[in-house]
This record gives sequence, structure tokens and C-alpha cells, in this order.
Amino acid sequence: MTDFTLHPVGYVSSPFQKPGDAPRQGRLTDELSRITLLPDYLAAADDLQAGDNIFIFCWFDRADRMVVKSRKGGDASVPLTGVFSSRSPNRPNPVALTLVKLVEKNGSVLTVKGLEAFDGTPVIDIKTYSAGIDTPRTD
Amino acid sequence: MTDFTLHPVGYVSSPFQKPGDAPRQGRLTDELSRITLLPDYLAAADDLQAGDNIFIFCWFDRADRMVVKSRKGGDASVPLTGVFSSRSPNRPNPVALTLVKLVEKNGSVLTVKGLEAFDGTPVIDIKTYSAGIDTPRTD
Repeated sequence: MTDFTLHPVGYVSSPFQKPGDAPRQGRLTDELSRITLLPDYLAAADDLQAGDNIFIFCWFDRADRMVVKSRKGGDASVPLTGVFSSRSPNRPNPVALTLVKLVEKNGSVLTVKGLEAFDGTPVIDIKTYSAGIDTPRTD
Repeated sequence: MTDFTLHPVGYVSSPFQKPGDAPRQGRLTDELSRITLLPDYLAAADDLQAGDNIFIFCWFDRADRMVVKSRKGGDASVPLTGVFSSRSPNRPNPVALTLVKLVEKNGSVLTVKGLEAFDGTPVIDIKTYSAGIDTPRTD
């Protein structure tokens, strides 16, 4: 088995410092977060514009990677579910996917609405949303 | 800067062996691909069912990680675009996001429709699609 190495491309600044601060999903917050891109990756963001719908890929570095089953919404009254059927942050490779709105781009700093990541979380990728490929197949 | 290590949770078997075989986006193919999960991660897939819309997160191990700008669709006549505004496979961390339909689940093998990954590509995560969080914000 071959492992692979992720290099962070930036870091999140957010009001969420500890468990309980962050909403269960970014969609549930109107809080703004900032992503500061590292110099090597600035050019990759050249064509992003305010108003864009973008997927932020974070590496949830405080997640528990040993978890393969968890309870949805952390609700102790519901059955255990395999994490591949859930959006639990705790999973073998804690890559978090959040669709946010880009509010402002100012140099290396992207201000986004709808991110649920803790302050200091590494960002590993950003992609534009495309309704043509990011909605379920109908066939 | 801290790097992070990805452990593959499975591997793709597909009809796509080399550049030119694979469609530009998984949405453009009806071909079926198979994902064989590794034993340690089987329980994470326990609750997946045929018909589910699932995001497959691949690690495009044949991508060029030095690319920060590329031409959309590989079209030489269009301007260079920062890769964070595109879905180019070549990017600093080549995590590919593809929304597929789960056609069948048989033991450790998931058969999916709509994946564009080369044969042998590592899979690093699977998440269920949720229209409530995976469509653009309206505010």
C-alpha cells in the first residue's frame, strides 16, 4: 500500500476554536471565515471572484481517523452508521468538503461564508462548483 | 508547515488505462467502474445502498502537482486559469471529486456509474451527497 502526502495550500481563520463552537455543517452558519493562502499557491487563486460558489477542501487535523462508524449528528439515540454514508468529520482520511460563497478576495486572503472549520485548519484544495457535474445523475 | 498522510481506503478498477481513454468529467461517461475497498475500511461502507448518490474522492496519483494554472478542458486556445477556479486534475493536491451513482454493492466491491478515474487510482474517501448542503447558498 502506498501512502500519499498532502501539502496545505492555506489555513483557515475562523471564530470556531473548540468542539461546540462550530456548527455541524457550514450551511448552518452565516459566520465569515478567512482562508490565507500560502505564497506558492497564490497564482492558483488568480481567477476566483467574489460571488463564486466554491468547494473548500479542508484537512480536519483534529479528527479521529480510527472511526469507521459513528452516529449521525452525534446523536446518541440513533444507530451507528458507516462513515462513508455520513458527513462525520471523524473518518479514515478527514477531508472535509464544504460548499461556500466567496465574499471577498483580497491578496492572499479569501473571505468565505459557510465554512465550519476550526481556526487554524489546513486547506488542501479549492474547486469551483459546477451544477452540470455536481448534481446527482438522473440516469 | 505540517504535511499530512493519506492512506488509500480502496482502489478503482476501470476501463480507462491512459490519457485519452478517460472522459474529461465522470458525468460524460456511462461506463461502470468498480471500487474495491481494503479490509480495514469495509465497515465504513456498511450502510451504502444501490441507488445512493455518493461523492468519490480519488487521489489522482498520475497528476502533475506543480501546476497552478492550466487551460480549461485542455484547450490550447483558451487563456490560462488558476487551478482553484477549475476542475483540472493537475493541481497541488490532486484530490478529485466525482458525484456518482452507486449501482451495486457486493462485499468489498462497489460498482459505480460516472467515475472518470484511471484503472488503479487510489480512493481516499466516500461521502453521501446531500442536496441540503451540496447546492449553492442563496444568501
